[in-house]
Amino acid sequence: MADSLTDIDAILNANLDFYRAFNERSVKAMEALWATGAPVLCVHPGWNALAGREPVIQSWRAILANPEAPRVMVHDDRAFLYGDLAIVQCEEELESGHLVATNIFIREDGGWKMIHHQASPLMVRAAEERRRTRPTRH
Amino acid sequence: MADSLTDIDAILNANLDFYRAFNERSVKAMEALWATGAPVLCVHPGWNALAGREPVIQSWRAILANPEAPRVMVHDDRAFLYGDLAIVQCEEELESGHLVATNIFIREDGGWKMIHHQASPLMVRAAEERRRTRPTRH
Repeated sequence: MADSLTDIDAILNANLDFYRAFNERSVKAMEALWATGAPVLCVHPGWNALAGREPVIQSWRAILANPEAPRVMVHDDRAFLYGDLAIVQCEEELESGHLVATNIFIREDGGWKMIHHQASPLMVRAAEERRRTRPTRH
Repeated sequence: MADSLTDIDAILNANLDFYRAFNERSVKAMEALWATGAPVLCVHPGWNALAGREPVIQSWRAILANPEAPRVMVHDDRAFLYGDLAIVQCEEELESGHLVATNIFIREDGGWKMIHHQASPLMVRAAEERRRTRPTRH
């Protein structure tokens, strides 16, 4: 990480690395970006909560092995810093709809490692899109 | 807070206070339990992300003013400590189904104040319940 990067830049980069690993189906990159020295947690859309590095990494292995795993575009990413932890909120755009994601990072070994991911369906946006794309009938 | 309470006890108590404020429709209690010195974030089920104390508190005012706001039972609550921040994961049981919630607290003025809440629908559990309660037909 270049010294000139601020924490916020570094955190947003770590967040993009997560989506890059996802889109490239890279288990290796995904494993590398989760923290090893702090408890990790993950809530996939619709799933129950997973706690612990092993179940979380295992869930990503299963998801990334699925050839039908969707591609994700991320936007509206914002980082909030709390000392050695940072919360990123962003929107995930999938073919099937939009999700609101919270990704949490911890300062570890001079970088930012993921400790939490949760994505939930964005119903408001889905309703807006349906309205916007619905053919007008009079 | 009694000195004998460990951090984890205090954090789980703060988490229960949040659900108590919700079930009692207490805007005053809800306002008091969110942090004042750190950025606060909230993702209500289906909503887009809210950032900042004013929009978050305003959203709770609207929700608590709604006479149809559901009662929530909380279970499987677990706290994970990261220095002055703590993540609680728990399940919320509503009449309409189950949600997985992540609540994050920060050490502020000797107590634990909320900085983040996100609840997402638990589809797996919902599917299990439907299976369990579905009449058997042969």
